[in-house]
Amino acid sequence: MNILELVTKKDEEKVKKLKEAMEKRSIDVLLFRLVEDVLYISGYWSSFGFCSVLFPLDGEPTIITIEDEKDFAERSWIKDVRYVNLETKEKLGDPKGDMIKIIKEWMKDRNLHKASLGYEGSMEFFSTNAMSRENWSFGISTYEALKKNLPEVKLIDATDLIYEVRSLKSEREVEIMKIVNEVADMGLEAFHKSLEEGKREIDLQAEVEKEVMERGIGYKGIERLVVFAMIMSGKNSAQAYKMYNVSTIKKLEKGDFVLMELNLNVEGYWSDTTRTYVVGKPNKEQEDIFDTALEAQERALEAIRDGVRASDINSIAFEVLKKRGYWNYITHRLGHGIGVNMHEPIPALHLASNHIIRSNMIFSVEPGIYGHKYGGIRIEDMVLSLKNKGERLNKYYRGA
Amino acid sequence: MNILELVTKKDEEKVKKLKEAMEKRSIDVLLFRLVEDVLYISGYWSSFGFCSVLFPLDGEPTIITIEDEKDFAERSWIKDVRYVNLETKEKLGDPKGDMIKIIKEWMKDRNLHKASLGYEGSMEFFSTNAMSRENWSFGISTYEALKKNLPEVKLIDATDLIYEVRSLKSEREVEIMKIVNEVADMGLEAFHKSLEEGKREIDLQAEVEKEVMERGIGYKGIERLVVFAMIMSGKNSAQAYKMYNVSTIKKLEKGDFVLMELNLNVEGYWSDTTRTYVVGKPNKEQEDIFDTALEAQERALEAIRDGVRASDINSIAFEVLKKRGYWNYITHRLGHGIGVNMHEPIPALHLASNHIIRSNMIFSVEPGIYGHKYGGIRIEDMVLSLKNKGERLNKYYRGA
Repeated sequence: MNILELVTKKDEEKVKKLKEAMEKRSIDVLLFRLVEDVLYISGYWSSFGFCSVLFPLDGEPTIITIEDEKDFAERSWIKDVRYVNLETKEKLGDPKGDMIKIIKEWMKDRNLHKASLGYEGSMEFFSTNAMSRENWSFGISTYEALKKNLPEVKLIDATDLIYEVRSLKSEREVEIMKIVNEVADMGLEAFHKSLEEGKREIDLQAEVEKEVMERGIGYKGIERLVVFAMIMSGKNSAQAYKMYNVSTIKKLEKGDFVLMELNLNVEGYWSDTTRTYVVGKPNKEQEDIFDTALEAQERALEAIRDGVRASDINSIAFEVLKKRGYWNYITHRLGHGIGVNMHEPIPALHLASNHIIRSNMIFSVEPGIYGHKYGGIRIEDMVLSLKNKGERLNKYYRGA
Repeated sequence: MNILELVTKKDEEKVKKLKEAMEKRSIDVLLFRLVEDVLYISGYWSSFGFCSVLFPLDGEPTIITIEDEKDFAERSWIKDVRYVNLETKEKLGDPKGDMIKIIKEWMKDRNLHKASLGYEGSMEFFSTNAMSRENWSFGISTYEALKKNLPEVKLIDATDLIYEVRSLKSEREVEIMKIVNEVADMGLEAFHKSLEEGKREIDLQAEVEKEVMERGIGYKGIERLVVFAMIMSGKNSAQAYKMYNVSTIKKLEKGDFVLMELNLNVEGYWSDTTRTYVVGKPNKEQEDIFDTALEAQERALEAIRDGVRASDINSIAFEVLKKRGYWNYITHRLGHGIGVNMHEPIPALHLASNHIIRSNMIFSVEPGIYGHKYGGIRIEDMVLSLKNKGERLNKYYRGA
């Protein structure tokens, strides 16, 4: 199936899971306002970010959005799509006011004006829209307007519920994430093959991004794709554990570690991978560093199974680093959940995590060794947890 | 001066303007939580997006951020930088809780625990951070935590104040925007020169983005730059008035209009430009379309002066389109403000706008003609309003 069919068709498994969670928490309606959640439930990935979905426990859901995105919105399995008035060349619009009005009427029409409404109250950290330039959030003014316009409604912060449901991928989502990571592999390959002494980090970034766009758009039906390749070499690679990664004008030198953090957003679903290679032939010490990271990743993969503690997976990988003398060179947790956002809170592969790994979770496994004399390396793959093992969704070469 | 010096040094003009506005509204402290406002006041452009600035009417301001961004934050003229505890490999962190604690103590230490605090209450639409992948907003849960932790503080939604102050650029900001648009011109040139029958839209996008990255990083000290080039040709170009623009795998054909929307974020400041060219030689009708758009843009530029109504500028440009028979082919307003976000509300160059153009505003002037048999064209430049005219910040060729 092509990716847009997978994304936009009704995902019965997902709908069922969501309704069970709503029932347990006595939530009658979920209001999704963030791009990632609108995508999650409807399959409609907003470019601009002004969109929402009313998802009731009983009855059919409704999308509210702008006319400009009609083509995208009407691909969704949700057939009731309502539009707000946008500005024309002659009149100014009030899309937010219109949205509140539609929500109010919708609740009244369905006799839900005294219902409990779940909202994304603590989701201040969220994925960008397809444009990646400006964002719409669910903020304070919409929240205040909801309270004012729905005085009898019980507002419930449903953030935890949403993250919990999102953490267990449906069969359809697993298929989507496999396609996304086929594209990621194209980027890892482009990086490996373009690596060359004398090139600047920024040149390599531009080349990888170009190749991913050119090969990715059109692949299995992909229409929208955002790609970010950050290249850090030599000493810069020692900084690659930080939250920002910047390619500079530094040239690649013989013997350098060159690390690429590759982040893709393909039709709304994310991939987050890293490869490190050496310019020229690695020396013995460098080989030992790679072997150690690889062994840490492999031991973690083998230990993954339904029911195991996420903290135990992290410990098993860290044990390898300790045993081989690299304990001071790992600075961060082993991994994080991923899906419609690049960092999802469940599961946290962290020593202090209380999450349990379940089948059909998808997360990163990313041992890193930073700050020794050669800089830093990281090997990061997307991993699907199966009943008895972890399966890497990225197949591209992980060595030196 | 290089761009980072311009961005990070204290901008006395800006600080004065902001304090005058605060005084008028009786705001003792402004809390900036969004990346664009933190950049605006401190010159520190966050990669990750978790950052804030406490800006008091009296006394020195304070930055609160994460240790990972120390290098960026400590370039700011604001010398008091405080850090929240992030997660380590062994402990989970609580950056939001830490931030609230720091704010609370800061207010108490300065005897401001009963002060009025301005916040970004209605800014649900905002610029992305330097990473462009995930965002932090100022959301409902932080707002509720502030109310709880600062029970005696008077919270004031300062959105209007912030947008008003931001609309008048300081001399330093004008310099910054000039550099940003020198980079934009590199992109417009790359587009024009790479245009070729048989290439796919997506190939052209990848080529332009590559060239902008390669030439832009390092130019006048630029370290961080995000570039988005959307190419729409032939029939696709007729859709270019919509809020999303997607390059497809369609190949450029002889006689096609090819439209590029180019959006740059350079060290936190935006440029938003558009060029349209014809593959091969334009015919008479096509030339007439270009002439019309150019004339509309030129008439608007000449009419710009300190004190004129934004709506009048829009009317003057639209008169040209009407007179030359293209009234039904323009679908949107003439332009929008720009700066630390790509779309800023002031000034709105719209027929229904009540804004007055003042010297040192920067905005787009972007007449477009869409939906005729050749598709659509738009010519969009960044314009600085001077006392007696509008000055285009983009110099690259605008013809067919």
